[in-house]
Amino acid sequence: MAHYPLPLIRLIESFRKLPGVGFKTAERYAFDLVTQKPEKAQEMIESIQKARQQLATCPECGALKDQSQCTFCDISAREQQQLCIVAYARDLYVIENTREYRGLYHVLGGLISPMQGYHAEHLFIENLVSRINKNGVKEVILALDATTEGDATAFYIKQILEHTPINLSRLAFGLPLGSSFDYIDGGTLARAISGRNTFL
Amino acid sequence: MAHYPLPLIRLIESFRKLPGVGFKTAERYAFDLVTQKPEKAQEMIESIQKARQQLATCPECGALKDQSQCTFCDISAREQQQLCIVAYARDLYVIENTREYRGLYHVLGGLISPMQGYHAEHLFIENLVSRINKNGVKEVILALDATTEGDATAFYIKQILEHTPINLSRLAFGLPLGSSFDYIDGGTLARAISGRNTFL
Repeated sequence: MAHYPLPLIRLIESFRKLPGVGFKTAERYAFDLVTQKPEKAQEMIESIQKARQQLATCPECGALKDQSQCTFCDISAREQQQLCIVAYARDLYVIENTREYRGLYHVLGGLISPMQGYHAEHLFIENLVSRINKNGVKEVILALDATTEGDATAFYIKQILEHTPINLSRLAFGLPLGSSFDYIDGGTLARAISGRNTFL
Repeated sequence: MAHYPLPLIRLIESFRKLPGVGFKTAERYAFDLVTQKPEKAQEMIESIQKARQQLATCPECGALKDQSQCTFCDISAREQQQLCIVAYARDLYVIENTREYRGLYHVLGGLISPMQGYHAEHLFIENLVSRINKNGVKEVILALDATTEGDATAFYIKQILEHTPINLSRLAFGLPLGSSFDYIDGGTLARAISGRNTFL
């Protein structure tokens, strides 16, 4: 069995730590970076360094921000009475790009998942109630995954906000747009039936 | 439309340059590296730096080597009369791990592909004939992809070695092991028929 040189093995191991990357994919990336022009590897190094140096998590809302003021906390540009809770910084952009929402955000940094050792105390949530009070938030929207982890996190936040005078809502469950009945799973269909709306 | 901060966009662009990485996948990697612990990004940077510093292409055979002598050019450990030509450094390990081959290697660094602007002059091939003569190679095995690019490269090397007294062979084409007739494409089947062997 021919073994890879050690620095190559280490590079493969680093790539394997990226989400969804298996051994074969990591091998492909590693061979590419060591056999292509050195400028390619250098560019990658600099991009990672600059991104880590110049980006930070907003201490107020948990969104990703550069060195300027957090655009999602700029109350002159946002609707202060709504606050949308998402799990990850990336989810915020997905919602933002629907153009359906102009309120504030709060990024938890994860979902409660005991299986993966991610518990309630890991959530970025200490300042949530104070943010709600400070901004006079009237509605909190839970935009969390439709998974067990999303459900667990939603129930946990519901408890935390129990005595806070807000309307708490969660994204609707139902048929995805363009979906055909033949391919809808039973769970989704059941939620779509129980959540049915008056057809006007 | 909410735009990502610029350093994040640059990082996504860097990841997109890895083989087989589309925009969504690059986004996923970039968000992971900027939102996880800083040590993860640092480890990635160091792995890339060390791999580039400590690994090099062997000037003799084109294989990937660390700072010690190239193990694939060590004639005390290899069968000198055979030389196997592969396209990429990684292919060499795939062949090596079959344990079917103990000869020398020659890594071309690519396959002729006019569509991708990769021509015969880009191949690492200048020293091929001199290596064959120096080592007294009797058989050259073309271990190239079963694609148009592999075919073009095979024919090009055949021309180059026309006046060199060696046996030139190419890997067999045929049914992959474990394959069922129902799923074999016509081209593979045609090659398996024309290349059929006496069944002993």
